[in-house]
Amino acid sequence: MEIRITERMKSITPSPIREMFKLASEPGVISLSAGSPSAAAYPQQELHEIVEKLFQDPVKFLNYGVTEGYMPLRVFTKERLREKYATGSDQDEVIITSGGQQSMDLAAKCLIDEGDAVICESPAFSGSLNTFLSYGARLIPCKMDEEGLIPEQVEEVLKTEKRVRAIYTIPTFQNPSGRTLSAGRRKQLLEIAAKYDIMIIEDDPYSELYYTEQHVPSIKSMDEEGRVLYCGSYSKVVAPGLRVGFCLGDKALIKKMTIGKQASDVHASVLPQMMVYEFCANYDLDGHLARVRNLYREKRDIMLAELAKADPRISYTRPIGGLFVWCSLPEGFDSRDLADRIWDEGKVLIVPGCSFEVDKYAVNSAWRMNFSMPTPEDLKRGTQIVVKCAGEMLK
Amino acid sequence: MEIRITERMKSITPSPIREMFKLASEPGVISLSAGSPSAAAYPQQELHEIVEKLFQDPVKFLNYGVTEGYMPLRVFTKERLREKYATGSDQDEVIITSGGQQSMDLAAKCLIDEGDAVICESPAFSGSLNTFLSYGARLIPCKMDEEGLIPEQVEEVLKTEKRVRAIYTIPTFQNPSGRTLSAGRRKQLLEIAAKYDIMIIEDDPYSELYYTEQHVPSIKSMDEEGRVLYCGSYSKVVAPGLRVGFCLGDKALIKKMTIGKQASDVHASVLPQMMVYEFCANYDLDGHLARVRNLYREKRDIMLAELAKADPRISYTRPIGGLFVWCSLPEGFDSRDLADRIWDEGKVLIVPGCSFEVDKYAVNSAWRMNFSMPTPEDLKRGTQIVVKCAGEMLK
Repeated sequence: MEIRITERMKSITPSPIREMFKLASEPGVISLSAGSPSAAAYPQQELHEIVEKLFQDPVKFLNYGVTEGYMPLRVFTKERLREKYATGSDQDEVIITSGGQQSMDLAAKCLIDEGDAVICESPAFSGSLNTFLSYGARLIPCKMDEEGLIPEQVEEVLKTEKRVRAIYTIPTFQNPSGRTLSAGRRKQLLEIAAKYDIMIIEDDPYSELYYTEQHVPSIKSMDEEGRVLYCGSYSKVVAPGLRVGFCLGDKALIKKMTIGKQASDVHASVLPQMMVYEFCANYDLDGHLARVRNLYREKRDIMLAELAKADPRISYTRPIGGLFVWCSLPEGFDSRDLADRIWDEGKVLIVPGCSFEVDKYAVNSAWRMNFSMPTPEDLKRGTQIVVKCAGEMLK
Repeated sequence: MEIRITERMKSITPSPIREMFKLASEPGVISLSAGSPSAAAYPQQELHEIVEKLFQDPVKFLNYGVTEGYMPLRVFTKERLREKYATGSDQDEVIITSGGQQSMDLAAKCLIDEGDAVICESPAFSGSLNTFLSYGARLIPCKMDEEGLIPEQVEEVLKTEKRVRAIYTIPTFQNPSGRTLSAGRRKQLLEIAAKYDIMIIEDDPYSELYYTEQHVPSIKSMDEEGRVLYCGSYSKVVAPGLRVGFCLGDKALIKKMTIGKQASDVHASVLPQMMVYEFCANYDLDGHLARVRNLYREKRDIMLAELAKADPRISYTRPIGGLFVWCSLPEGFDSRDLADRIWDEGKVLIVPGCSFEVDKYAVNSAWRMNFSMPTPEDLKRGTQIVVKCAGEMLK
């Protein structure tokens, strides 16, 4: 039979990054295309000890759990956000999600009716864009500059577009651009959201990975009326394969998201939630994060050192945190051509910029490079090949 | 701010069973309300051994996995279904889901546009009904009798309702009724689906839990054109807290569901998938299932023995598998009154029948009782209290 697929799913294409992910594991490939932490950053020994302990009472994680998530992890998450980052109030609640991506899914389920619009960054994390599309949203991209999303552009859209329900942003160490929205702009964005009475979905999986002491407060920390849904993840703090994320927002919204989660997957797998909790609460989380930051800072510097040798017409961001550097050839060039060249030259993978746009077919001169995952050797050699091939394109 | 919730989520109420679940863990409560396996049925020691082994290479499950699921588990699932149950063809593919519930979520995402209708059983598993509602589906209940869903009723609906996209059924050891759709009716249902060109979503989490040798083939095993999406789970075979389910269906549909899953939660947590695979492939799965069946058969018999002493005006099903017995007072009585009485009498929990209907407010004389979870003592005493109180209502 000819199976009729829903309107909402017709427009969605597989994530190019997920597809590349399969290629990336082949021998000899240098992948600068991942969005993954480094395997060296996982607290392997600690997690092993933890699981040993948890098996003293395995029924706790073999039985069904509650939809809101493992209570100690919820409490820990809420308190840490509040104490360490002044994020969250008495009006807020936390739900544990099956990885950060599910926060977008539940947010879209509860906030975005079909035909509603979501303002997103250009470029933006394509995984979340697909999530919004999968609920029938229209996406309206707004330009960024070095300071991140440009608030005036957002307001320009809101003046004419009546069905915008939310602004979706990764304000800190953005994926893919590595940029960070300035504190002033965060305040401005929240004021605009209030003026037009729309939500902000603040996606913040990278903020623990800062490489300078320069701290920018979360948008949520400025929110006094439940306008910001703050989405975080333990993927970059502990390990992504465990699929443990969280969402902090207005109690009433979290309650609806909990009903949505019941209907989606009942609850996140319990053992991974307990592993994350035990590690964060009972081991040296701050020490662990300090080690991870040092590891990634060094890797970032290897990549930036090679990019410094590039033709000056090649621009690139100098991220103060996160996992990504964003590069551009002059306008008119297509980074897909570069992707082909570096694959032929040395089996190097990057992600072309078009993957992060609402319009995936427009010529795009930018591309994303990840520095957390490759070994220092691959990082150096991979970036050298990118620099060389990009330079050749300019000749 | 007043957060505007989507139309699709407005009509959905929290699962009464999930809410009761919180009450059920209080001391002194006899819960006949769960849908859970027995903790005694979990292969605890085996899973401990497995995890020990898996920690020899933890990066495998700490890294991101692929969206389709852990490959060895996909292959195992597909082969076992085909070899043991003649279910699935070369045109089919398997995706691993984050628990059985997610199969419904991904199916709805890909198959049900807002305003489309889904035919469901009356009574039906409320979790799935909520999933369909959360995608804006209209639900059309069809009556069942002792042989399960009545095909003529389904055809009656299809004659006039043009936007039905799928029939949702738990044909084997149904939740909540414990009934099993006869082989003849399965064939009939598939023919009707073909005649009106709609899909069948066959939800089959209980079929491994049979207590007689009487085997009924899956609807999927009769499907030659990819019309049936077959949804299964390892919750009742290994453990529900792990959240590992699967879906077998036409390749093109599974591909779309995979894109939907990317946007939902990227992939199911890897460690639980590996635990399930290692147990099923390398331990004595058949022996384990035989033990579980014996355990549940005995428990079922305890419940049925007490029900045999009930006032003959109280009817009940005698399930040949699964986890549930479905009871009814004569028409006109409200099982919510019974639920109140047994709670007062001895802190016993059942699930009133209204919870399993599209119209949750209509007076309903039926209720569901679970026999897998309670201890034999609680089972006996709990059922005795139900029988006593139901009898008193008839006086």
